[in-house]
Amino acid sequence: MNSDMTIGKLAVLLAVSSNNEENKIFKKGEELGYKLFKGRAGSMDGEKIFAAVETAAKRRGIIQNQYREEHTLYHSILDAFHGVCRGELALGSILRSVGLIFSVVRGPRLAGDYSDGEWLAVALYGTIGAPIKGFEHEVMGLGINNI
Amino acid sequence: MNSDMTIGKLAVLLAVSSNNEENKIFKKGEELGYKLFKGRAGSMDGEKIFAAVETAAKRRGIIQNQYREEHTLYHSILDAFHGVCRGELALGSILRSVGLIFSVVRGPRLAGDYSDGEWLAVALYGTIGAPIKGFEHEVMGLGINNI
Amino acid sequence: MNSDMTIGKLAVLLAVSSNNEENKIFKKGEELGYKLFKGRAGSMDGEKIFAAVETAAKRRGIIQNQYREEHTLYHSILDAFHGVCRGELALGSILRSVGLIFSVVRGPRLAGDYSDGEWLAVALYGTIGAPIKGFEHEVMGLGINNI
Amino acid sequence: MNSDMTIGKLAVLLAVSSNNEENKIFKKGEELGYKLFKGRAGSMDGEKIFAAVETAAKRRGIIQNQYREEHTLYHSILDAFHGVCRGELALGSILRSVGLIFSVVRGPRLAGDYSDGEWLAVALYGTIGAPIKGFEHEVMGLGINNI
Amino acid sequence: MNSDMTIGKLAVLLAVSSNNEENKIFKKGEELGYKLFKGRAGSMDGEKIFAAVETAAKRRGIIQNQYREEHTLYHSILDAFHGVCRGELALGSILRSVGLIFSVVRGPRLAGDYSDGEWLAVALYGTIGAPIKGFEHEVMGLGINNI
Amino acid sequence: MNSDMTIGKLAVLLAVSSNNEENKIFKKGEELGYKLFKGRAGSMDGEKIFAAVETAAKRRGIIQNQYREEHTLYHSILDAFHGVCRGELALGSILRSVGLIFSVVRGPRLAGDYSDGEWLAVALYGTIGAPIKGFEHEVMGLGINNI
Ligand SMILES: [Mg+2]
Ligand SMILES: [Mg+2]
Ligand SMILES: [Mg+2]
Ligand SMILES: [Mg+2]
Ligand SMILES: [Mg+2]
Ligand SMILES: [Mg+2]
Repeated sequence: MNSDMTIGKLAVLLAVSSNNEENKIFKKGEELGYKLFKGRAGSMDGEKIFAAVETAAKRRGIIQNQYREEHTLYHSILDAFHGVCRGELALGSILRSVGLIFSVVRGPRLAGDYSDGEWLAVALYGTIGAPIKGFEHEVMGLGINNI
Repeated sequence: MNSDMTIGKLAVLLAVSSNNEENKIFKKGEELGYKLFKGRAGSMDGEKIFAAVETAAKRRGIIQNQYREEHTLYHSILDAFHGVCRGELALGSILRSVGLIFSVVRGPRLAGDYSDGEWLAVALYGTIGAPIKGFEHEVMGLGINNI
Repeated sequence: MNSDMTIGKLAVLLAVSSNNEENKIFKKGEELGYKLFKGRAGSMDGEKIFAAVETAAKRRGIIQNQYREEHTLYHSILDAFHGVCRGELALGSILRSVGLIFSVVRGPRLAGDYSDGEWLAVALYGTIGAPIKGFEHEVMGLGINNI
Repeated sequence: MNSDMTIGKLAVLLAVSSNNEENKIFKKGEELGYKLFKGRAGSMDGEKIFAAVETAAKRRGIIQNQYREEHTLYHSILDAFHGVCRGELALGSILRSVGLIFSVVRGPRLAGDYSDGEWLAVALYGTIGAPIKGFEHEVMGLGINNI
Repeated sequence: MNSDMTIGKLAVLLAVSSNNEENKIFKKGEELGYKLFKGRAGSMDGEKIFAAVETAAKRRGIIQNQYREEHTLYHSILDAFHGVCRGELALGSILRSVGLIFSVVRGPRLAGDYSDGEWLAVALYGTIGAPIKGFEHEVMGLGINNI
Repeated sequence: MNSDMTIGKLAVLLAVSSNNEENKIFKKGEELGYKLFKGRAGSMDGEKIFAAVETAAKRRGIIQNQYREEHTLYHSILDAFHGVCRGELALGSILRSVGLIFSVVRGPRLAGDYSDGEWLAVALYGTIGAPIKGFEHEVMGLGINNI
């Protein structure tokens, strides 16, 4: 892994990592001073994706239970969700569902550079498709905002 | 790297990889039967991103110079570009520019499983921001279509 | 209040006015020959906002129960709703709800100038946010169409 | 009917044709080597439109029950649905419903020219409007993708 | 042609008609009391499509040179352009261009029924594609508003 | 003016105020601890609107020349621009231009309540229309983000 690590690359790598790869990424990220979390959410209802990420990020202490932090998180999820949906923020209402792994990372944009304060990155990675087993392809989204 | 490799994960890893990581990914992808390419494109003009990916994909023989293959590639770039732009497919006209690394991968959705034919994945990874050095954050997009 | 009053400014001022300010605006608008109405609607379901505005506008006689007038009203609400949603016309499905004050104003684009017929303005003003008390910020939208 | 028939024109003509016109179009299309189907779907729920077209296309053998064919069909419906919705892929959530006739056509882009393989066209034609009888106007959408 | 003719069907049929079919449609439409026009416009610049339709509609007397009529026309072109672009109102900036035939029709929603006043329909039909000859597929859009 | 003043209402009132009304709003806002600015920008090029607001906000010291502050400002302009454009972030490319007054306000969401830190509001108010004098109607947008 590159030593020029960034918040977005960390979020992306954590989201796409398999179970045996993820510990290395958690360790590397934490050494670099980031807070990181990874979870799963699948649904035809977009709000369940948002709720899963928000709940996890609060419970794990990645954000404080304060509106300005929640607002930054919300817009990072929303930005990442655009990458998943690619043009229309709709799942069930256009007959598709997602199975996603999400990661949330908090820290500087560039590892070790605190001159521009803290940022929050959300990555969403998984599959989107019809409600038929195996009828799906991969999707990915990334959202980053200042916290 | 997981042995359950997929076309989208390959495209994402290739796009975010640093120079010393990318050879391992090319090698792994080629062993699994994929065609892969990685390039760079930066602009305030969206069409230059599209043109750079299309030109590279044709020149490297990842797609044939035939409309149905070009159409699949175009829509994969477009899908990935949605992840980069997150809601409005505009760069210069809303005063922002991108510096992107792109990857193009051709092969089966799941490594080794040719039962559903060939697919094409495009990943775009880099930064978006104001026309001021360092005023930028990371973005990522992924587009996958049947070829 | 400016004597160069316009239909949109009237709608905006009426929507953002507090209880003690609104009578002055109603009076001013009516003197200038406008029909005006103000109401409230809050929901995670977009259709409830549309229904509240449409029902009020018909009941108060701001529009006639005729399709071409309803169509103009509908598109004015839709235009204003874009300002509220800012990119994705979704509320509950992306885990957010709104509490809105709406105004509907009918009359000329510029007060006193009937040379271009009647127009309809809808303003929506209030808050959008998470389903947590106080986790919300203000939003505003305005839609204007010929009737 | 023009002898320079194309897949999109066939889909459009079939969708807008009245009962006594449609047989001529079916016959012409089949003579030219196309597979064609026409059906009806109406709802405030977008997913019911998608489901109706997908079910009909599979049952009539226009597509095979294979993901890459379903994926092409899905994106063709989605493209056509953009023409119906014109900016926001939402029906009931913005208080409107549709009554649509759909056509699905499979074959070459230009009749008789198989040099670029098979394509799939979906046309949607009908009315959109308020949940009040007669408060509606016509809409049309067309989506075409390589299969 | 169906005797239950409507403004949208007329616009669609006129736009997709070949040279030898169009006279029949013009004649039928005019007998039913509609004003109709058909023209051509192709570009990578969206504004040229808008300008071509607006100029033609004014020159042919389909709309008067008055803002409220121009506004209705503008929004009808915009609605139709959504069908052409299917999600992102962009042409050259995402490396694509269109070659379109447009029709403009003015009259009642349903032929002979003047109870709901006059409406304006714009249909756009043609091809969209890469700037490579033959690398293109058909598109269609329809926009209807009260005038 | 209501004593329960909020950042968004201040931005909206400042943007719609006439020359003789604006001093009262500036004074009220400053008494409540807000930084406020008002300017003008008109163009067929969206980027000129963004540039005008960014330049003014920096020059007047409403934001510091630091990326995280610029990023918050950028997204607030973008949110407000959605209200102006209502569905498609395009001006000249769909043959329309805007003449806008903008306001930028920095301070707490609710006057006097610093418990949730500072926020930034951008309001855009003016007209949108065809490139023909007087062929235009009013538009309004508001964007608010945590700084
Ligand atoms: Mg940003
Ligand atoms: Mg897909
Ligand atoms: Mg308008
Ligand atoms: Mg296409
Ligand atoms: Mg309509
Ligand atoms: Mg917000």
